[in-house]
Amino acid sequence: MTTEKEKMLSGQLYNSRDPQLVKERHKARHATKAINNAFSIKERHFLLRQSIGHCGDNVFIEPDIHFDYGYNISIGNHFYANFNPVMLDVAPITIGDNVLLGPNVQLVTATHPLNPVERASGLELAFPITIGNHVWIGAGAIVLPGVTIGDNVVVGAGSVVTKDVPDNQVVAGNPARMIREVPLD
Amino acid sequence: MTTEKEKMLSGQLYNSRDPQLVKERHKARHATKAINNAFSIKERHFLLRQSIGHCGDNVFIEPDIHFDYGYNISIGNHFYANFNPVMLDVAPITIGDNVLLGPNVQLVTATHPLNPVERASGLELAFPITIGNHVWIGAGAIVLPGVTIGDNVVVGAGSVVTKDVPDNQVVAGNPARMIREVPLD
Amino acid sequence: MTTEKEKMLSGQLYNSRDPQLVKERHKARHATKAINNAFSIKERHFLLRQSIGHCGDNVFIEPDIHFDYGYNISIGNHFYANFNPVMLDVAPITIGDNVLLGPNVQLVTATHPLNPVERASGLELAFPITIGNHVWIGAGAIVLPGVTIGDNVVVGAGSVVTKDVPDNQVVAGNPARMIREVPLD
Repeated sequence: MTTEKEKMLSGQLYNSRDPQLVKERHKARHATKAINNAFSIKERHFLLRQSIGHCGDNVFIEPDIHFDYGYNISIGNHFYANFNPVMLDVAPITIGDNVLLGPNVQLVTATHPLNPVERASGLELAFPITIGNHVWIGAGAIVLPGVTIGDNVVVGAGSVVTKDVPDNQVVAGNPARMIREVPLD
Repeated sequence: MTTEKEKMLSGQLYNSRDPQLVKERHKARHATKAINNAFSIKERHFLLRQSIGHCGDNVFIEPDIHFDYGYNISIGNHFYANFNPVMLDVAPITIGDNVLLGPNVQLVTATHPLNPVERASGLELAFPITIGNHVWIGAGAIVLPGVTIGDNVVVGAGSVVTKDVPDNQVVAGNPARMIREVPLD
Repeated sequence: MTTEKEKMLSGQLYNSRDPQLVKERHKARHATKAINNAFSIKERHFLLRQSIGHCGDNVFIEPDIHFDYGYNISIGNHFYANFNPVMLDVAPITIGDNVLLGPNVQLVTATHPLNPVERASGLELAFPITIGNHVWIGAGAIVLPGVTIGDNVVVGAGSVVTKDVPDNQVVAGNPARMIREVPLD
């Protein structure tokens, strides 16, 4: 039998009120509170490292972080997130090496049915977000469910990224559109 | 004689530096701090319920919430707000049943005169926000003063909702515009 | 010899991993934590006043504030910032008198090279943000590096301000564009 968690992780409609998932989210809220309340920067990162799926070397995240489960987050080496990152990791969030997030960036894998009756039933679904290497996402940008961002991409501040971004593009706007290529020389 | 609070609640220019209103806002800040610092999720919702005007059944709000007064907020049944909701309830904010807010959604009833001299005097005003049943507002969306959102509406992530949205519409963008109808079958 | 801090403050590429700058940012994070955790509003503002470069009379900032260094922030008289202001003061942020910020406003002086190899080296740069008198910046607006906002300007909620705004304009959108003149009569 397929569990609600297995459905969730495979991009199928799942019941968000499933007791196991509720329990895991509550555990994650307590972990997040401990991280955000930690007295020292060292303690904060020690706790963070225990709460997420994979955490590379030289990872620095400014306060306060918010995530859904934590275990679906994989962060590469040399990562920096500025203030208040939101990572709704209902599906996997995979971040490459040398990635920078500006303040208030939101990575949102969770979505809901458009049909109001179906939505009210508590059925939800989520799609992975994948971010390549050497990516810089500007302040307040929002990355939507299922989006893959290629290597070297720069996302302008305040952008809403609704679809995949190929390597070496600078995108901006709501919805985000390519405005130029990244200079590679 | 009309008090500043009565003017505030009826959409007239009022003096935001009125001592009673300052006192009420300070009280609300302490209530919010207690809510956001609460050790358990149960305690948080117990305190939240005491601080807002009306709170239906099955209301769940992720940390941290920020509101202006609290008593102008009315939330129906089966409500879920993701991380960091901002509800500037200078005028009433009325939310129906089965409403979902993504992370960092802002419901802003407060506004100011455009004339700089008038604005510097401390005179402000506010207009109610009304949200119907079965509404889903996406991550980072901002709803502006006076806006009514109809039943079954879906507001895309990062939208700025500047005017009323009729029932059964999906809107997105800055400013938000209709992009399709909600599928009701 | 030019220090990394001197380069930073003069708009040149500087090494963000410089030990002195890391130390100053850590100090600022502890200051910010104390400000945001302060029990009373009075204590919060007492601590805030000690942490920023210049703080005029009648300055009120709602929780939680986040800044990069603090000492590069200069705020005039009669200032009000609503919830969760972000002030990335890598370069100077200079705010005039009678300025209002809506909730979740971001003033971002920091930027990075577009070239991925150069960016990964840790070299960064920043440009000052200057805000005139009698300015009102709406909820969730983002002001980008190097921008000067003139007197009496109104910035609409959710705007992304990418270039200078002359006196007496109302701007809105992503990117922000003039939508009307401020009524001065």
